[in-house]
Amino acid sequence: MFSFRLLKKSKRNKARLGLLKTPHGLIRTPAFVPVATKGALRGIDFEKTKNLGAEVFMINTFHFYLGHSYRLVKKFGGLHRFLGLNQPLMTDSGGFQVFSLGFGLAEGVGKILDQDRPVQTQGKNLVKITDRGVFFESPFDREKLYLDPERSIRIQKDLGADLIFAFDEFSSPTASYQYTREAMIRTHRWAETSLKTFGKNKTDQRLFGIVQGGEFKDLRQGSSQFIGALPFFGFGIGGSLGNTKTKMNEVLDWVVPFLPESKPRHLLGIGEVEDIFNAVKRGVDLFDCVTPTRLARHGAALTRQGRLNLKSGKHRQQKEPLEKTCSCWVCRNLSRAYLSYLVKNKEILGIYYLAWHNLYFIFNLIELIRTAIKTDRLAELERRFVQKLD
Amino acid sequence: MFSFRLLKKSKRNKARLGLLKTPHGLIRTPAFVPVATKGALRGIDFEKTKNLGAEVFMINTFHFYLGHSYRLVKKFGGLHRFLGLNQPLMTDSGGFQVFSLGFGLAEGVGKILDQDRPVQTQGKNLVKITDRGVFFESPFDREKLYLDPERSIRIQKDLGADLIFAFDEFSSPTASYQYTREAMIRTHRWAETSLKTFGKNKTDQRLFGIVQGGEFKDLRQGSSQFIGALPFFGFGIGGSLGNTKTKMNEVLDWVVPFLPESKPRHLLGIGEVEDIFNAVKRGVDLFDCVTPTRLARHGAALTRQGRLNLKSGKHRQQKEPLEKTCSCWVCRNLSRAYLSYLVKNKEILGIYYLAWHNLYFIFNLIELIRTAIKTDRLAELERRFVQKLD
Repeated sequence: MFSFRLLKKSKRNKARLGLLKTPHGLIRTPAFVPVATKGALRGIDFEKTKNLGAEVFMINTFHFYLGHSYRLVKKFGGLHRFLGLNQPLMTDSGGFQVFSLGFGLAEGVGKILDQDRPVQTQGKNLVKITDRGVFFESPFDREKLYLDPERSIRIQKDLGADLIFAFDEFSSPTASYQYTREAMIRTHRWAETSLKTFGKNKTDQRLFGIVQGGEFKDLRQGSSQFIGALPFFGFGIGGSLGNTKTKMNEVLDWVVPFLPESKPRHLLGIGEVEDIFNAVKRGVDLFDCVTPTRLARHGAALTRQGRLNLKSGKHRQQKEPLEKTCSCWVCRNLSRAYLSYLVKNKEILGIYYLAWHNLYFIFNLIELIRTAIKTDRLAELERRFVQKLD
Repeated sequence: MFSFRLLKKSKRNKARLGLLKTPHGLIRTPAFVPVATKGALRGIDFEKTKNLGAEVFMINTFHFYLGHSYRLVKKFGGLHRFLGLNQPLMTDSGGFQVFSLGFGLAEGVGKILDQDRPVQTQGKNLVKITDRGVFFESPFDREKLYLDPERSIRIQKDLGADLIFAFDEFSSPTASYQYTREAMIRTHRWAETSLKTFGKNKTDQRLFGIVQGGEFKDLRQGSSQFIGALPFFGFGIGGSLGNTKTKMNEVLDWVVPFLPESKPRHLLGIGEVEDIFNAVKRGVDLFDCVTPTRLARHGAALTRQGRLNLKSGKHRQQKEPLEKTCSCWVCRNLSRAYLSYLVKNKEILGIYYLAWHNLYFIFNLIELIRTAIKTDRLAELERRFVQKLD
């Protein structure tokens, strides 16, 4: 019921075209995976997003653990039924969100949890990590919670997504070499526990392992070798990718060569245009990101010329569309002035239209990337898109 | 470019089927007109609403006068272009909202203005009425504004909707007979001024007059006779309709017989299931209401059994749809539990799904009503719908 087939490998770089088969449908790779944090995309519906090109959605286990709504989902026979979605789904392990709580930055945590309401960590460390798992407090109601590989996998089984992830420790970007190494070793042990808990005979789910190791070359290589050798269906690349585009590229250059060629690779949490090109060129097949819908909520549109901020007064009288060359419905029918007006008036419809355009932008880009890989013209496409950005 | 044709008159009551032709398309009557207050439906897009059965939308002149955004719309050549909508549109005169400010009830005003944010009238009378027009303060920024028939019609010409309304005084439901009479006389004078300002040779718009007279029989009859004799394209029935269903029926029974049979009749601001049946049976052709989208924003669904409040804890585990007999997408695919979960988590998608179902419910009802008029079975349909309501 599951398979991953490589259809083409570029001769000029590591980019590849693939087909990931799941019981709920096919995913053409490279694939962009929109994030439906709590089981809902923000500001736009699943149906529309499917029509724009989404072939798989990512849902956050953390949010279904908080408030224990995974139990409700289980009663319904899993996320597909609960959300009314006959479509491939992914869940992450919850690790990213849990460990982020420990970084102690309320604003950052809010962003990580994809919350627009303020998250109160009050500078308090909400997280206690042991070799077995992690104790943490809910940033919303202070409920004391615990997550470890067994529990993460059990919850993800209850949620029933097609593709699920091993429980890993996301170590802080500011952590020392020593700490990052310890966290990586825990992640490796947890990878084995995740596999064991997952079991061998699951026919309706597949498990991805996650490579850690922060921004350190030997750790990243070691983690990739270790995780890459385990019998996972695919591999996630997690952890800190540095603050610069160069660092992310370095990390990918260290990690990818040690991952088995025949298995899918998912870069967790990226979705900027430049990052997408960099990741695809380095052999990444899937990436998830909240950017298109989050930007929409904040009144911004993705364009080839960079981000357009509709909150700025300067678009208020502009008859032109968000992007002249874009052929999405929003750009064919609406002016920047009207979108600006909707954003200023806090109309939900403004978020909807911007999310629509932004998702169209990303899925159109992905489609162009797929064609460019087929015709070995990825570099040309990248020049057209990336050089025009601010 | 405009016409109104009666296709069928019921033998058992005053219900009628009609076809209203506008330069932007046909409207089959009886018609439900969803309200896109500031030029946006709340929580759902125009395209989807069209697909559910909307053939015309109502937009509020008041909101485009506040903040002077009607000037921006004029630069774009009118609402159709500004909103990207090739569809019949209506604007009201602004009178309803302006005069409501004078009632001094902050909560009521918020509801009338379709605002979820608090409206600060601070018990202050924001309105001063003269025989020429009305001075008022913006409830949002205290800007001093003035509206009269000339200005209302000029703004509505700038907005460019297909069907527009004469400027009338909406007198308070608690006003005396004497005051209601004075306000009605002003409304009659303003109707003549509205017609004069509108002019004779407009090919792309048509003007509706508005009957007033509160809850008083002789005033309603007199107003209907007076307004009904003026050369309007159609007629709105405005003002207070009383607090009971019986009172609304009485008002309609007084008003409708004096309106010309051959012209369309619009009942302003109603949309409850029972009201729709009562109005249609009494010869009303069009009615506008924010109910389907407002209820959605407040977590409620329309069903044949009455309103379903998704905020109530009792639906949290329910696998059944909002309504078992409903064949909308939401009811075919989603459980009350998931919708409840979305509402509880304040996900925009919850509003979207509820608005979708509620609009489907109303348009499905209207379609059934049209068929029932054709086959003279309206009373049977009403029994099926209304008796089951709480």
